[in-house]
Amino acid sequence: MKIVTLGEIMLRLSTPSQERFVQAQQFDINYGGGEANVAVSLANFGDESYFVSKVPSSEIGQCAIDELRKYGVDTRFVVRGGERLGIYFLETGASMRASKVIYDRAHSSISEAEVSDFDFDSIFKDVSWFHFTGITPALGKKAQDLVLASLKAAKAHHVTVSCDLNFRAKLWTSEEARLYMNSYMPYVDYVIGNEEDADKCLGFKPEGSDVEKGKLSIEGYKRMFEAMIEKYHFKGAACSLRESFSATHNGWSGLLYKDGEFFQSKHYDIDPIIDRVGGGDAFASGLIYGLLHLSNGQEAIDFAVASSALKHTIPGDFSHFSAQEVSALMNGDASGRVKR
Amino acid sequence: MKIVTLGEIMLRLSTPSQERFVQAQQFDINYGGGEANVAVSLANFGDESYFVSKVPSSEIGQCAIDELRKYGVDTRFVVRGGERLGIYFLETGASMRASKVIYDRAHSSISEAEVSDFDFDSIFKDVSWFHFTGITPALGKKAQDLVLASLKAAKAHHVTVSCDLNFRAKLWTSEEARLYMNSYMPYVDYVIGNEEDADKCLGFKPEGSDVEKGKLSIEGYKRMFEAMIEKYHFKGAACSLRESFSATHNGWSGLLYKDGEFFQSKHYDIDPIIDRVGGGDAFASGLIYGLLHLSNGQEAIDFAVASSALKHTIPGDFSHFSAQEVSALMNGDASGRVKR
Amino acid sequence: MKIVTLGEIMLRLSTPSQERFVQAQQFDINYGGGEANVAVSLANFGDESYFVSKVPSSEIGQCAIDELRKYGVDTRFVVRGGERLGIYFLETGASMRASKVIYDRAHSSISEAEVSDFDFDSIFKDVSWFHFTGITPALGKKAQDLVLASLKAAKAHHVTVSCDLNFRAKLWTSEEARLYMNSYMPYVDYVIGNEEDADKCLGFKPEGSDVEKGKLSIEGYKRMFEAMIEKYHFKGAACSLRESFSATHNGWSGLLYKDGEFFQSKHYDIDPIIDRVGGGDAFASGLIYGLLHLSNGQEAIDFAVASSALKHTIPGDFSHFSAQEVSALMNGDASGRVKR
Amino acid sequence: MKIVTLGEIMLRLSTPSQERFVQAQQFDINYGGGEANVAVSLANFGDESYFVSKVPSSEIGQCAIDELRKYGVDTRFVVRGGERLGIYFLETGASMRASKVIYDRAHSSISEAEVSDFDFDSIFKDVSWFHFTGITPALGKKAQDLVLASLKAAKAHHVTVSCDLNFRAKLWTSEEARLYMNSYMPYVDYVIGNEEDADKCLGFKPEGSDVEKGKLSIEGYKRMFEAMIEKYHFKGAACSLRESFSATHNGWSGLLYKDGEFFQSKHYDIDPIIDRVGGGDAFASGLIYGLLHLSNGQEAIDFAVASSALKHTIPGDFSHFSAQEVSALMNGDASGRVKR
Amino acid sequence: MKIVTLGEIMLRLSTPSQERFVQAQQFDINYGGGEANVAVSLANFGDESYFVSKVPSSEIGQCAIDELRKYGVDTRFVVRGGERLGIYFLETGASMRASKVIYDRAHSSISEAEVSDFDFDSIFKDVSWFHFTGITPALGKKAQDLVLASLKAAKAHHVTVSCDLNFRAKLWTSEEARLYMNSYMPYVDYVIGNEEDADKCLGFKPEGSDVEKGKLSIEGYKRMFEAMIEKYHFKGAACSLRESFSATHNGWSGLLYKDGEFFQSKHYDIDPIIDRVGGGDAFASGLIYGLLHLSNGQEAIDFAVASSALKHTIPGDFSHFSAQEVSALMNGDASGRVKR
Amino acid sequence: MKIVTLGEIMLRLSTPSQERFVQAQQFDINYGGGEANVAVSLANFGDESYFVSKVPSSEIGQCAIDELRKYGVDTRFVVRGGERLGIYFLETGASMRASKVIYDRAHSSISEAEVSDFDFDSIFKDVSWFHFTGITPALGKKAQDLVLASLKAAKAHHVTVSCDLNFRAKLWTSEEARLYMNSYMPYVDYVIGNEEDADKCLGFKPEGSDVEKGKLSIEGYKRMFEAMIEKYHFKGAACSLRESFSATHNGWSGLLYKDGEFFQSKHYDIDPIIDRVGGGDAFASGLIYGLLHLSNGQEAIDFAVASSALKHTIPGDFSHFSAQEVSALMNGDASGRVKR
Repeated sequence: MKIVTLGEIMLRLSTPSQERFVQAQQFDINYGGGEANVAVSLANFGDESYFVSKVPSSEIGQCAIDELRKYGVDTRFVVRGGERLGIYFLETGASMRASKVIYDRAHSSISEAEVSDFDFDSIFKDVSWFHFTGITPALGKKAQDLVLASLKAAKAHHVTVSCDLNFRAKLWTSEEARLYMNSYMPYVDYVIGNEEDADKCLGFKPEGSDVEKGKLSIEGYKRMFEAMIEKYHFKGAACSLRESFSATHNGWSGLLYKDGEFFQSKHYDIDPIIDRVGGGDAFASGLIYGLLHLSNGQEAIDFAVASSALKHTIPGDFSHFSAQEVSALMNGDASGRVKR
Repeated sequence: MKIVTLGEIMLRLSTPSQERFVQAQQFDINYGGGEANVAVSLANFGDESYFVSKVPSSEIGQCAIDELRKYGVDTRFVVRGGERLGIYFLETGASMRASKVIYDRAHSSISEAEVSDFDFDSIFKDVSWFHFTGITPALGKKAQDLVLASLKAAKAHHVTVSCDLNFRAKLWTSEEARLYMNSYMPYVDYVIGNEEDADKCLGFKPEGSDVEKGKLSIEGYKRMFEAMIEKYHFKGAACSLRESFSATHNGWSGLLYKDGEFFQSKHYDIDPIIDRVGGGDAFASGLIYGLLHLSNGQEAIDFAVASSALKHTIPGDFSHFSAQEVSALMNGDASGRVKR
Repeated sequence: MKIVTLGEIMLRLSTPSQERFVQAQQFDINYGGGEANVAVSLANFGDESYFVSKVPSSEIGQCAIDELRKYGVDTRFVVRGGERLGIYFLETGASMRASKVIYDRAHSSISEAEVSDFDFDSIFKDVSWFHFTGITPALGKKAQDLVLASLKAAKAHHVTVSCDLNFRAKLWTSEEARLYMNSYMPYVDYVIGNEEDADKCLGFKPEGSDVEKGKLSIEGYKRMFEAMIEKYHFKGAACSLRESFSATHNGWSGLLYKDGEFFQSKHYDIDPIIDRVGGGDAFASGLIYGLLHLSNGQEAIDFAVASSALKHTIPGDFSHFSAQEVSALMNGDASGRVKR
Repeated sequence: MKIVTLGEIMLRLSTPSQERFVQAQQFDINYGGGEANVAVSLANFGDESYFVSKVPSSEIGQCAIDELRKYGVDTRFVVRGGERLGIYFLETGASMRASKVIYDRAHSSISEAEVSDFDFDSIFKDVSWFHFTGITPALGKKAQDLVLASLKAAKAHHVTVSCDLNFRAKLWTSEEARLYMNSYMPYVDYVIGNEEDADKCLGFKPEGSDVEKGKLSIEGYKRMFEAMIEKYHFKGAACSLRESFSATHNGWSGLLYKDGEFFQSKHYDIDPIIDRVGGGDAFASGLIYGLLHLSNGQEAIDFAVASSALKHTIPGDFSHFSAQEVSALMNGDASGRVKR
Repeated sequence: MKIVTLGEIMLRLSTPSQERFVQAQQFDINYGGGEANVAVSLANFGDESYFVSKVPSSEIGQCAIDELRKYGVDTRFVVRGGERLGIYFLETGASMRASKVIYDRAHSSISEAEVSDFDFDSIFKDVSWFHFTGITPALGKKAQDLVLASLKAAKAHHVTVSCDLNFRAKLWTSEEARLYMNSYMPYVDYVIGNEEDADKCLGFKPEGSDVEKGKLSIEGYKRMFEAMIEKYHFKGAACSLRESFSATHNGWSGLLYKDGEFFQSKHYDIDPIIDRVGGGDAFASGLIYGLLHLSNGQEAIDFAVASSALKHTIPGDFSHFSAQEVSALMNGDASGRVKR
Repeated sequence: MKIVTLGEIMLRLSTPSQERFVQAQQFDINYGGGEANVAVSLANFGDESYFVSKVPSSEIGQCAIDELRKYGVDTRFVVRGGERLGIYFLETGASMRASKVIYDRAHSSISEAEVSDFDFDSIFKDVSWFHFTGITPALGKKAQDLVLASLKAAKAHHVTVSCDLNFRAKLWTSEEARLYMNSYMPYVDYVIGNEEDADKCLGFKPEGSDVEKGKLSIEGYKRMFEAMIEKYHFKGAACSLRESFSATHNGWSGLLYKDGEFFQSKHYDIDPIIDRVGGGDAFASGLIYGLLHLSNGQEAIDFAVASSALKHTIPGDFSHFSAQEVSALMNGDASGRVKR
């Protein structure tokens, strides 16, 4: 299956060994971003995945492309040019100390890319699926136009479209988010978003739940999905459910509403978490894979959650698991026994 | 607020990646010591902190000073000279394997410093608070004299004095500790010490508690504090309460008796512990900060315990948290959610 | 006590920092193998241990020998020659992600060694104990002959023999295992094997237990041991009992049947596991030490389980604990308190 | 330009920081092999390069493929299967201490590949150039057949063929080499080989030169090339000339005989050498690029030597330089001035 | 002596172990910038040095400040705010491969700082010397105004002013440089600049020299300095003379014209160079120290060149040498003998 | 051959990657000391070597023993006890920056060992050679007695004795050195010492040489050796000749006077030097090996110098070369060509 994602890829600089920023003498280098992460994960599952973006023509831009190529993502549609590659600094938390993200992503090449930089007819030729996230329009006016243009082109090529709402409070306000995300929803077939995303981006809230207080009403989520689908005519809506016990211990599961049916996944207790960045993207990629390749909604949401749970156990933004490995976990073996 | 601490700073050499000593090919370099740790933590909270000590005039001595300066501690009163910088080797434990400390601190410059090395009138000018620990007099006769001289000078300058009893069985006996610590108590306003410290240094024990067996009587602690205050006329007494489930999992809380009131802090479950060395010093610095800047005893002990809990989540002796970060934890968010 | 073990030592190449193979830029170097691990552990306990094997005459072979010498194992009977040192690649798991082992051990020097390479009369002179595992005959025909020759020689020198069944599904089938292991059992005094080993190597199963489902019947194990002893006339039989909650969290205990008595050890909750490879060998070495030096079966199985639990808390195949450290844990202190 | 290379790619394990094997606790991971190195270098120059080989279906095999993909090499014709990936251990020398290579490459997947594993009609479709080396037939009988089959297929598709003789004394004898290499030469258009290669593989020697004694007769090389061309009807013959002053200091230049003309390159003094492994392959790739893209023989040999000189200044087997960077050196700037 | 420098401090991210950017998995973290480097070096010599700048209020900004404090630089006049800390990526060269610098410094806090951010009356109170470089005005309009304001304030406080011309072709053109640098020269007492700087910034060239061709006319430099002094009424003019044999081997010396006298320094052969970034700043700081503390021009230029030569032997932008260490080299011992 | 050395082994803590002490965040761990280095080198040559010393009974002491065992040194005569293991800090130099050594070795176990700690009759049983250095008596009174006792015992067992004078200005004065070293010389058969050692320890100087000025008179050395032999009746005297061009570039050769004959070795140009610490000990061990195993004085001194030159090319105190490797260099191949 040919799948396209479009968005920003950043240089991620993280401190090793649980150090705080002031303690670090080296940064571990990774590259990542919501849509790039989805592309890598899908390539690891065996799909033919394409990542579309713009990176500077420097060696730093090339490094980002090389990392994608390494994992089998097709980068032929990545444009070169612009000012810089966005950077984010990451301090990985532990126990009750949360991870800390510092963005240095303003003025990035993708945030200032023109629609005319991309040949969407070539990009969407023979494509089955297009995935984007709410992070890209949060980058600014040009990125907002770019997303709209890509959605129109995708629809013109009859491509299925998924959107991970992914609200980012450090990038834009809820008012801005609602304005733009609402305008994109008519083009979207499958929407992904947790409670906060649904509220901040689209104005929907699950009744009876309160993330901060750890309360969760599955029924409330079901009704929220139904309302969203009624308004936007989505084919489906999904979310992951994270219980944050600490920075290194989370509960993890997911919900999917599709074709009038509601599915709740298995539940995982992830302890310890090695790196939770990219966990949501591993969920999205698992869901796309599940919807494309598996036989029903239950399998799709179970695959998505297993994919995401595994991502939490390795460092970096990218998820490096084969479809077989995800299936093995989804089908039951979470005991961590060595095979030899 | 101008705060002075006096004591030893050591070169800490620890094995990386949970290695035992026999496995290590590199040592991670840190510098630390009870009073230096308190000085760094207070500088991170925004107070004007001074560390007083003596280090050799070699580059190794200078490295210790440079680390303190990096975090904003004023080192102008650190004297250069003497034979060597004390060293301690640390093997960080995991699960049921305890951390192992090997001291190589005999003959250190501070342990052989003279009272005349220090100009206490300059040191204590305009100072609000002086903090010392029971580790310094455990270093030997000269250090015992030095502590006494510093206490007399502090009192002459109307400085509030706090003492962390910190009994060290590898350095002296309970008999020696009681002899000297008793002689210092008349100069002390606030005393900090857990059950073992109170017993081995001052001869007080909380009834009904038994650390080895995991039994804890809050009421017993309250009565012990009352008895100590009756005897020494402290303004306050405090202790941290550690439940040692394993080397990487502890329960953590604290108690404060002040002005006739008794306060018990929130409780934290720390799992995993990244490095527990310096946890007690982060408690002491948090308590000093709380007593100086917060509005009541409950806030002071909650701040102290939150400061200390956070220290357990980072490597090294020093605690690198701002007052805002400690307050955020103390006011409730221990979920470890990433902010972005 | 002079103790001999015979088998393969491999170069172990493991990814650092929980990385997957595709992420790694460096491999941590360790050397290990069931019988070599037992030899190191016994040398650390203070016994005089000898490891017998064949390694290539290259520097890589020498490195394996050097690591053994470092920890006090006598390597005078290690023969040089043959084609290569076996290698295994290890990706250390976390949470629900299991560790992954990739073998590259075919054509190793020991797997193609001749009986005539070894002078068993010199090797077993004045020896008290000989230990081997089911891994060695799984290496092939020549290794199967070598094991038989070593067992005959050991018995001729009146040496006590222990065998850790250690079934390896990647190396041979249950049919092959049963054929050869059965032929070795008449020479064996003490057998060690968990449920899977006993079944796949000897055809015995504990009734009422099911590892995959987490069910455990102590009574079933007792009866299995009795049946095995009846058939093979062992002096004793033992096993460790692992509860695999996740790759980083296991329960751990053990059973011993000896001289008509049945002993169940203390139980440990190991969380986090730093490295579980070699855990079984630390159990075997602890059991051998216990049977040779401690006063009864209960102490022997408690020592074995404590030895093994500690191994899980350090990296590498080898177990680096003194008999004193193991005894301290066995006698009760699993709290992980720092001593200073 | 579409270029194909065929051969072995190995896992290279090298000691960091000039350590000897016995000192190392970690191995740096690289992947390399003569023909893979040429493919990477050509991809870096901007050509469309394909590497053909067989690697095991394990993660280790996948890692080798991922590294090639990272640098833009097309790996669609790499077959999965067989027993293992060849390994070589490298200890990097310094001053008068030579680098040490230990091969552990027997039984590798490519050495036991069948001709039928490869679809040469697809492989050579629209291809301009095919490159192989004398290392592949040195791997054994099956590899010798594979090389012959590939040469016949290449010629059937009118592909230009180059061969780097690359005699490896650890893999075969001069007698074997001459037997097979002679049989391949009729298919070869351009041959590359230094004095030792030409002698051991084809029986030609430059008169008046003696590498061991540091004597060099350019005229002798010219006559040797003429003789080789007369016998095999090559379109051209080339060699690099290495003056080994020490492991970290070499002189470096090259010679090319083409279409009746003889070209001698610029000379470089390489000090220090960071890693000389792959230097010959960077020469070959530079020569292929030069013959395909540059205007004359002088430029081709200058480009080849500059490419190779630059390779010596970076770690790893692969050469990571753009055609622009090589041209800049070739056109004169070897001063190492920072541009900023 | 109280010395002030003003300019940009950047986060420097460099690849370890001579790796190219595409090979790196970690970046070494350093902080540096022309004027910050001078401030650190002078603090290491024992002077009281102040660095003035603006950094973002994030942890990354704080890290830059912490590094300066570590080495004793007074950072009280560093303003917090603005968008980001400038970054530069560094790939360290070797042999004929030049180091590569990639700037990502646009939009930095200091480049967008307002004159009103700084209280120059406080900054220049009791100051002896002010140093700036041509890099700061190259950052843009606001920085150009800031430099002019600082110069006027310095002069108003009767502070001696030095300027390192430091032309940066990646930041501005020669035309822009000449426009602004000319306007600053009336405030300058000592100017530092090599041939290229003098030409590109001020339009002066030493006759008879040609850096690219390695030709050098000392007499030409003397006449150039005389012409510059005649035009701008400098108290002195100096330059370093670099002979670039390769990225790791340079010749190094310097010239000073002061009070009508012309001084040529000792000459050093630096091989290997560990890191040449910051070498010019170590020259400037050495010259300032020499002019302030040593007895004559010859000693001043010898100290400057020795300071700079030593900088080339350590990693990072900063120069970590005491005045005693520089004097020892300047007075003759370049043999590298170990003292023990 | 059974060879004994006696002296101190220290923990060496060195900064990685040419960092200065103030820059380092990790120390590389090595163990070394003149006599331990000689023991390791001889074990690597294949001799049966014993190291005699006293180390503390802590894990740090055990680590030193383990490193010796790893390389095949017999440590059965190393006594446990005393206060601490001596430490030395090392900052490795480059170019004109010399390496810096900071000793923290006072109060070490060996410096305070009693003669009665050692059973010299067991130690010297069947021993061929005993080697000591002038470093040991420089440690203090007890060590001076220990050396004398060991010499008397060695002579009583008819053991050949060699002494490396090794004057250490940081440990004692020339006056002290001459007093003690003179008293030991009657027991010595072979003496090793450069110009400075011979002068400071014994009062002999080669006429016509001046190390500081780089002047060297071979004839002067010959006459000095003759005079020394006349006075002390040595069987032989030797020295290495170091030309210190820089910290990373030395010339290296050696002289031997034996049985009335005078031998001058080959000369090596060592560039770059990776680590010169232990170079003198590799010379001493090579000389001992040469005198014991080779056929004449010329071979002995050539072997000694080649052994020592190779040591300069690897990190750490210890020399890791086989006799075959040293012979290969001594017989001519210093070209650094890779063998493959």
